Amino acid sequence: MVNAGLIVIGDEILSGKTADTNTPFLIAELRELGVRLAEIAVIPDEIDGIAATVSRFSGRYRYVFTSGGVGPTHDDLTIAGVARAFSVRVHRHPELERMLVAYYNGQKTQPLERNLRMADVPEGVTLVSGRELSWPVLCMRNVYILPGIPEIFRRKFTAIREQFRDTPFHLHQIFVRSEEGEIAGHLDQVARNYPDVALGSYPLLSPAADGHRVKLTLESKDEAAVKRAVAELLGLLGAEVVVRQT
Amino acid sequence: MVNAGLIVIGDEILSGKTADTNTPFLIAELRELGVRLAEIAVIPDEIDGIAATVSRFSGRYRYVFTSGGVGPTHDDLTIAGVARAFSVRVHRHPELERMLVAYYNGQKTQPLERNLRMADVPEGVTLVSGRELSWPVLCMRNVYILPGIPEIFRRKFTAIREQFRDTPFHLHQIFVRSEEGEIAGHLDQVARNYPDVALGSYPLLSPAADGHRVKLTLESKDEAAVKRAVAELLGLLGAEVVVRQT
Repeated sequence: MVNAGLIVIGDEILSGKTADTNTPFLIAELRELGVRLAEIAVIPDEIDGIAATVSRFSGRYRYVFTSGGVGPTHDDLTIAGVARAFSVRVHRHPELERMLVAYYNGQKTQPLERNLRMADVPEGVTLVSGRELSWPVLCMRNVYILPGIPEIFRRKFTAIREQFRDTPFHLHQIFVRSEEGEIAGHLDQVARNYPDVALGSYPLLSPAADGHRVKLTLESKDEAAVKRAVAELLGLLGAEVVVRQT
Repeated sequence: MVNAGLIVIGDEILSGKTADTNTPFLIAELRELGVRLAEIAVIPDEIDGIAATVSRFSGRYRYVFTSGGVGPTHDDLTIAGVARAFSVRVHRHPELERMLVAYYNGQKTQPLERNLRMADVPEGVTLVSGRELSWPVLCMRNVYILPGIPEIFRRKFTAIREQFRDTPFHLHQIFVRSEEGEIAGHLDQVARNYPDVALGSYPLLSPAADGHRVKLTLESKDEAAVKRAVAELLGLLGAEVVVRQT
C-alpha cells in the first residue's frame, strides 16, 4: 500500500504558540487520496534533528512531507536539515534565482542578496510545478518540502496532490451497545481471519444518545474483503447489539 | 531544561477517524508546568513500532507520555510494545489484580479472565496514584502510559501533573510591520548573542488588522536574559516598526 510520513518542524507547535492546522489538513487529504499516513513527527527547529528524522522517514515511506522551517530567518533550518539528511550541499539553484530576479525586476527593484536566499536549496532537488503555483514545490528524492504558513501549505499541496492518488479506502462502521471487553473475542477472531482488513475498536466513556458504547471500524482497499469481514463479525455479534451501521 | 516526549498511538488518528485532542491538551499542560515538549510522534497500532519509538524517546527525554492503545481488544498493543522496548515480560500485577477482583466483587460479580487482563503490565512498572484516581497510572522507568479516551487521558494527567512542575517559561512577544526578510539580520544577531533565549519569527501571509506582518517571540527560563535580548532587539528594529508588544 502506498504510504507517507509527515514531519512538522517548529518550536511554535511544540510550545503551543501556534495550533497545528496543517496536520489535520494533510490527514484528510491523504485519506481521500488513498494514501496511508504511517507516521507523524513534530520536531524542533534544529538541524540535526531535522536531518535524522528526514533520513529515517525517507528510507521508510514512499512519500515524505515536511511542514515549516522554510524562510529567510535564523530559525528556518529545514533546507539545511534536508541537505544534511542526504549528505548533499546547499547551492543556489539557477532556475530559482532567475525566477527571483525576474520577480524583483517586475517590481522595478533589484533583489538584495538576502532575497536570493530563497533560491538556496539542497543539491539535487527537483522543482514540482502545479496549477496556480507561482513558486514550485521543492522535492528532494521522495521528500516534499512545504512551508508552515497554513494558507500556503494548503495551496501548494492542493496544486500537486493528484500525483499521489492511489486506489481508495473502503470503510464500514458498526456501532454496538456492548462493552468492549464483551466482544473482544469476536474482534480477535475477525482480525485473525482477515489480516488485510484493519479492524478498529473505539469505546466511549459513557453510552452515546443512541445507546452505542463502541464504534467498530473495518477498512481495506479490498472492498470485497471488507464485506466478508463485516458479514462474519455481524454473525458473531448478533443483531441485538448492533445500534447502527454506516 | 526538563524535557518530555509524547507518543500518540492509534490508527484512528493517522487515518482521520478521530481528531487528536490529547496532543493540544498535553502541549498546553506541559507549557504551563515549565516542561519543554521536545518531540511528538504519532504512530500506528503495531508492537514493533511502539517498542522502537518508546525505546528512542525513553533514552532521550526526561519524561515520556504515551496516549492510546490501552484496553482489552486486539488493537490495544501499547503494554506489549512498552514491555518489548525495555526487554521485559508482561506479567499479571498482584496489586492490580486484587483491585480488579475487589471491584467486581463490589458489583456482586466474579471477574472473567478477560476482565483481569487490565492487570497485565510490563514487569517493573510502578503504580502512580493521584487524587481522585480509582485506577493508578502505569509508569515504566520514565514512560507514563495513558489511555487514549480524551476524558480519561485528561483526568489521569491532571491527577499526576504536579510532580512534573519545573521553573516557568518567560515569554515576550513583539509584533512588527516589517517583512521578515528586512529584519532577518537583526534576528540573526540577537539569536547569536543570546543563545539561551529562544527567538522565533512567525510571518503572516498578509498584514493583520493592526498592521503587523511578523510576530517575534523571545523566550527563556531566565527572565533577565529575555529582558536583555528584548532591549537589544528593540534597539536594532527601531520603534517605528513595532506595532505592539505583550
